This record gives sequence, structure tokens and C-alpha cells, in this order.
Amino acid sequence: MRPSFIAALATGLLVNSASAQQPLTLRDMGSFHVGGRKVEVTGQPVKEIVRVPGGPTSKLDLNGTYHVEHMYAQYFLVQNRKGQWPLLMWHGGGLTGATYETTPDGREGWRDMMIRRGWDVYITDATERGRSGFAAPMIWKDDPIFLTEVDPWQRFRIGPGAGSFNADPAKRKLLPGNQFPIEAYDNFLKQIVPRWLSTDKAILDSYVALIDKVCPCVILAHSQGGHFAFRAAEQRPDKVKAMVSVEPAIGGGASDAKAVKDMPLLIVYGDYIDQDPRWVAYRKAALAYADAIRAAGGKVDVMSLPEQGIKGNSHMMMMDKNNRAVLDVITKWLVDNGLAEN
Amino acid sequence: MRPSFIAALATGLLVNSASAQQPLTLRDMGSFHVGGRKVEVTGQPVKEIVRVPGGPTSKLDLNGTYHVEHMYAQYFLVQNRKGQWPLLMWHGGGLTGATYETTPDGREGWRDMMIRRGWDVYITDATERGRSGFAAPMIWKDDPIFLTEVDPWQRFRIGPGAGSFNADPAKRKLLPGNQFPIEAYDNFLKQIVPRWLSTDKAILDSYVALIDKVCPCVILAHSQGGHFAFRAAEQRPDKVKAMVSVEPAIGGGASDAKAVKDMPLLIVYGDYIDQDPRWVAYRKAALAYADAIRAAGGKVDVMSLPEQGIKGNSHMMMMDKNNRAVLDVITKWLVDNGLAEN
Repeated sequence: MRPSFIAALATGLLVNSASAQQPLTLRDMGSFHVGGRKVEVTGQPVKEIVRVPGGPTSKLDLNGTYHVEHMYAQYFLVQNRKGQWPLLMWHGGGLTGATYETTPDGREGWRDMMIRRGWDVYITDATERGRSGFAAPMIWKDDPIFLTEVDPWQRFRIGPGAGSFNADPAKRKLLPGNQFPIEAYDNFLKQIVPRWLSTDKAILDSYVALIDKVCPCVILAHSQGGHFAFRAAEQRPDKVKAMVSVEPAIGGGASDAKAVKDMPLLIVYGDYIDQDPRWVAYRKAALAYADAIRAAGGKVDVMSLPEQGIKGNSHMMMMDKNNRAVLDVITKWLVDNGLAEN
Repeated sequence: MRPSFIAALATGLLVNSASAQQPLTLRDMGSFHVGGRKVEVTGQPVKEIVRVPGGPTSKLDLNGTYHVEHMYAQYFLVQNRKGQWPLLMWHGGGLTGATYETTPDGREGWRDMMIRRGWDVYITDATERGRSGFAAPMIWKDDPIFLTEVDPWQRFRIGPGAGSFNADPAKRKLLPGNQFPIEAYDNFLKQIVPRWLSTDKAILDSYVALIDKVCPCVILAHSQGGHFAFRAAEQRPDKVKAMVSVEPAIGGGASDAKAVKDMPLLIVYGDYIDQDPRWVAYRKAALAYADAIRAAGGKVDVMSLPEQGIKGNSHMMMMDKNNRAVLDVITKWLVDNGLAEN
């Protein structure tokens, strides 16, 4: 081996210090976009612009037809499958598919753990975010919302609510025993992207288009994604074989709950829920939906991780230091429900 | 094998019909963000918002500190390496890393071809795009620019310039022998994301941060990305071991050309350049940069694909139907320059 190869390998290892394990063998991987619509824009002034400094000018005429509100999906298809169906992993509000990749502190995320456990995985960026692109301000007229560095710390159950964040890391307050990798909090902030409050229907439509393309499937969804998963499953109950909803932001439609009564559903909650009225409210809404499913004859399992002995989990449990232990109980539920070989 | 497994496999095969080949074996994969800065926002009104329909209200206070202008990178590290260094693949203007993934018509893209050829690959979304997020309108005050469905057809050498696009696919004019997968043109449109004209410095800074993290390396860059690659390599000449620039939007800095004189450089052009004054202008600027490198004692190879017998290539040659043939000549150049085992 040439010395330069050894140096390059060392560089790789620096980036991936946690990867002393078996290779990932995929029968294929790739990406595509689904859904969306075409929209016509008129009345925009025509400009001459320079696209690169010092380059030639070219005409910028924004009037015309655009393709908007589609969604990006990236897939990883494992060589030795154990999961009975593809697993669709949907992220939460203000985030992208990066949620499920490497954790902010460089450990393996749920995407690769599930691939190693034999699941074909589809990771999406919800319409409006990441590689799905967006359509403001020309087509969507409202401004997006952003999260300050204070917001997730106090709202995602890392610190104990208002006043727990401080610009000085040494002065930040932490919920006791919290498992979030706080030393990499800035890396987590970099995963946050703007979101709009006006795009829910477009997002849902794209998720349904994804289901039509790649399902039957199992959906694992987080937070805002959990809401979309409920709503999408109500529209395609024959194609969604099971759902895992990690701290859903809310339930589905109570009057539509009977549509999903035949799919196993697991709702997972982390720690400290009872200490934050906002989380109590979200849980109450999701549990009301669970009750409506049960009333229609369905089966819902609600799991509180602390009651399973898994403690300290924030809202971003797929990044928490014990993320593997959380995924273990989810995987066990999938196997117990006949959705994967053991 | 259970019938349900067979059904699920069939679904997978529908999505990936071109994948009847050897599995991809990776020693690791993952993602991270690099670069960026913190910025303070003040004077924004505080609002109460509902984040999901029917959910509880919560306070939206946009005043505070944000992390902005960082960049997302996704890496795929191959089990059996032949490339001497990691390969960084940088996309063009208004696009994301999806450029190098599956082609719009579902064939294998350059990312996976290069992995199969034994290269560790890093794919990025330039600052402001894709999973890197953006910071407008709150921090960047200018509006982004978009591309209409007419624009790439006429400007990326798919059709013969102005007037060649028509909303009716049957009425679109094509440059003779063009290799772009026009039947999937709408899928290509879905890859386009907004871009800003004010963010070049932020983008360049993140690329330099990426180089500092993962190089020594080889950079393969397209269009606007080619410009950033030249500028970044000028700042880190010891870390960039070679560059392939696919139709760069412009050259680097002529006065800085001597900095890159010791790295092999290949500039690649597709077909029809002489038929479009805008492309002639871009080529002229890049060739002037090449001349400045040569004047400093460097080596630059400029390859016109038609002169190699590879005809019909648009600006998006990594998606063209003959994308494999184009990558073959690039790969041969890398091997000839001692950057990969044959």
C-alpha cells in the first residue's frame, strides 16, 4: 500500500471514528423526486444578471412555469433483507432527512442501524425543505419561520424549558440525565432549515405520492412527520402496513381513525414529558387519536421509554447517546408484529 | 420466502429497474455539516403560532442567535478503494448534490459509478441549498432566483437556444443528437432549487472548510461549482491533489492561478459549445484561467468530448444517456495522472 493511500485512509477514519464494524452491503441506492405541481408566474420584471462574478450577463425572466411542491427521496436497499417492507423514515418540523443520518456528534444514526438490521430505507426531505426545494417568495407569499439557537434546547426537552439555554455552554442547564449529545449542539443547529406554516397540504400530498410509488411499506415518523404519517396512512390504509410514530406533534383526524385500524401502530415517548405542559398537550392529542383508533377496533401500542428503563431521552431521541437502545425497542416491536425476521 | 417478501422485492425492483448488477459495499457512510457562522437577529415581533393544525399554540420569537451559511456533506466510503484520495463532487448553480445521484430517468448517476470504481465520495449541497438550509429573508435580504421550465432547456444546450422550448413536449426542439433524457425533463426540473446572487463568499468559505476537514482530495466540480473549486483550490493548494472541472461557469482568479500550478487539472466540455455565444464566453474565461496556470508552469488538459468521439452532450452531462462514456474518459484521466489504481 502506498503511503499516500495510508494517509488518505487515515483522513477517512478521522471523519468516521465510530465505524469499526461490518461493511454496509447494498443491492442498490439512489434518489428521485415525487409529487408536486406546475404553476404559472406572471408580472415579474425581466432583469439582466451576472450569475458568477466576472462572468457574462444573461437574462433573468422569472415569468413562466415552475415545478414546485415536489419531494426528494433517497433510498438505500440492503443486500440481505429482513424487513418485510421498505421502511420510510419521515423527519420532523424544521428539519430534513439528515435527522436520521450520522448524529451531530458523529455516531451512527437510525438510518444505518436500520439498514444493518436488514431494512430497505427511504429517507425524504419534506416538500419545502432540503433537496425538495421551496417556492417562496414568488409563489408562497408568507415568510418561513426559523429556530434560534435557544429554541430547540428549551423546547425539545434538552434543558428544563424557558431560561435553560445560555450562550455560554458551561452555563446551560440540562434536564437531569439528559442523553442529547450537548457537546455537538451547534452541529445539530446546522441541521435546522426554514419551514413554512402554509404548506401542510402540499407536504401531505407529496407524502401520499411517495406512498403510491414505493409502498406497501412501514412508516417511521418523528414529530411533525408523525402527523403527516397519520394523515397519509388514512388516505392509503391498504399500503401502509405499520406505523411507528416517535413523539407525534399531534394525532391524525379523529373521524378518519377507523381507516387505520388494521395497521399496527406504535407511539413512542421519551423522558420528561410530564414536566412540560406543551408536551403534555401534544401527547394528549395523540392519545385521543389512539383512543379513536381503538374505538374503531384497532390496536395501538403506546410506549413510554422511561417505563421501559430507557431514561433521559429528548425529543431528538434518534440522536441521543442511547439512540441504539431506543431503536432496539422499536425493532423488537416490528419483529413482534411480524414485520421483520428476527 | 414468504409471498409478501416477494411482493415487496418486486416493488423495490420497479423503483430500481436498472440495478441488475453487483452490490455496493461500503465500509461506512454518513453525513455532517461544516463551516458557517453565528448571527444575531433583533427587532423581530414576537408571535403566537400553531405549528400543526389543531395543535397547541407556542411562542415564536425570531429574535436571537442563528447558525447560518454552513454546508451539508454526505459521504460514501467504499470497501475496496482504488482512488488514491477522497473524491469531492460539487454541483452547479441552482442545484444540489442530487445532481450526481440517480439520473432523472432512473439510471445510475456518477456518484454510484465512482463508488463502484473504488472512490470514496463526498457529495455536498452548497451553502444556501438543499440540506444546508438558507437564511432569507431574515438575514439575507435579497430574493432568490429560480429557473422556469423554459430556462434549462434553452440555456443548458438541450434545445437550440431561445424559442426551442414548448409547453407541449412534442413541440420542443432538440439540438441534433442531444443525449439529455428529455422524457424525464420534468424530473430534472424537480431537482432545481432557488439560489441567491449574494452568497458566493459564504459558499466559498464553506467549501474551504470542507477541504480542511476531509482533504487531501480530488475535486470534481460542475458549472458554478467549477468556479468555487478553482477559488477554493487557490486557497488550499496543498490539499487539493487534482481537479476535474466539468464546464466551469468561469475560471478562478488569474492572479492566483500560480497557486494551483502543481495540481493536475482537467476541464471538460460537451457538445454544441460553438453554437451558443454564452457558452463561448464561459469557455473563453475558463481557458484564459487555464492559460494563466500554464504561464505559471502548470499543466491543464482541456477536453472537448466531441473531439473524443463522444457526441451530443448537454451541460448536464452527468445525466445524459451517455453519462457512463463521459465518466469513462474522466476516470481514464484520473488513472493516467496516478490518482487511482486501474
